[in-house]
Amino acid sequence: MPWFEDYQVGQVRRFGRYEVTAQGVVDFARRYDPQPFHLSEEGGRAHPYFGGLTASGWHVTAMAMAMLVAEMPEGGDPAALGASGIDELRWLKPVKPGDLLSLETEVIDARLSEGRPGLGRLQVRTTVLRQGDEPVCRFTALVMVRTRPS
Amino acid sequence: MPWFEDYQVGQVRRFGRYEVTAQGVVDFARRYDPQPFHLSEEGGRAHPYFGGLTASGWHVTAMAMAMLVAEMPEGGDPAALGASGIDELRWLKPVKPGDLLSLETEVIDARLSEGRPGLGRLQVRTTVLRQGDEPVCRFTALVMVRTRPS
Repeated sequence: MPWFEDYQVGQVRRFGRYEVTAQGVVDFARRYDPQPFHLSEEGGRAHPYFGGLTASGWHVTAMAMAMLVAEMPEGGDPAALGASGIDELRWLKPVKPGDLLSLETEVIDARLSEGRPGLGRLQVRTTVLRQGDEPVCRFTALVMVRTRPS
Repeated sequence: MPWFEDYQVGQVRRFGRYEVTAQGVVDFARRYDPQPFHLSEEGGRAHPYFGGLTASGWHVTAMAMAMLVAEMPEGGDPAALGASGIDELRWLKPVKPGDLLSLETEVIDARLSEGRPGLGRLQVRTTVLRQGDEPVCRFTALVMVRTRPS
């Protein structure tokens, strides 16, 4: 398992597979984002840029998170302490039922916490890809990871 | 209903009410972020800063979205076209079952789209508050709203 010391600036990984379904889009929207373009095909057609049922942006980031966690070992990654924030989140294209999502991550910064011993901070640029190559969402996660136990 | 022209830089609003429950935290985590500290009290206690079951950060932003949409009229706000992105999202404090969330929004920028006629772009600084006054999450939403139909 990787600890903070195992991450290097410039590391790029591609992984993950998440199929977007109409049921998943509507289920998420009903609970958290019940706007017409996230609830039905007709609602999406009334939107000037979406052109049909479109996943909530927060559903897209949730699906990205599901792909990130699916890479961790069963029961959790002992080094992973979550994220303190996100910079420059952009929803680049409407995500629709039938899209097959995957991820590309790149470590763009890695440094020890100044205030918290045993903590490393990574900046990970994360791109959600559709059909393996088209970016549909991008953000930089401010990730907290433990240093290797001594 | 407000159109782009009705928003003014400096407008501040406080609204919303969302009670965080253990069942809601675990349901979201099982689907999208199944890390130990989002799944059980014991998992949360093993985290060095969370101290018990803690909502996924993406669940916190989803609950914020639910409060934003709850302010819109039944069937949707005809001016609301969603958001193109988020800047400077920060999870400031662990959000836990029993917390009562609300929102404060402030319009910090408002301008017409240069490329898309009929579209206005707002920057809305959004703060999720706990128990009415303690900020637990903050982000700036890049919101798309229609101009008033002529």
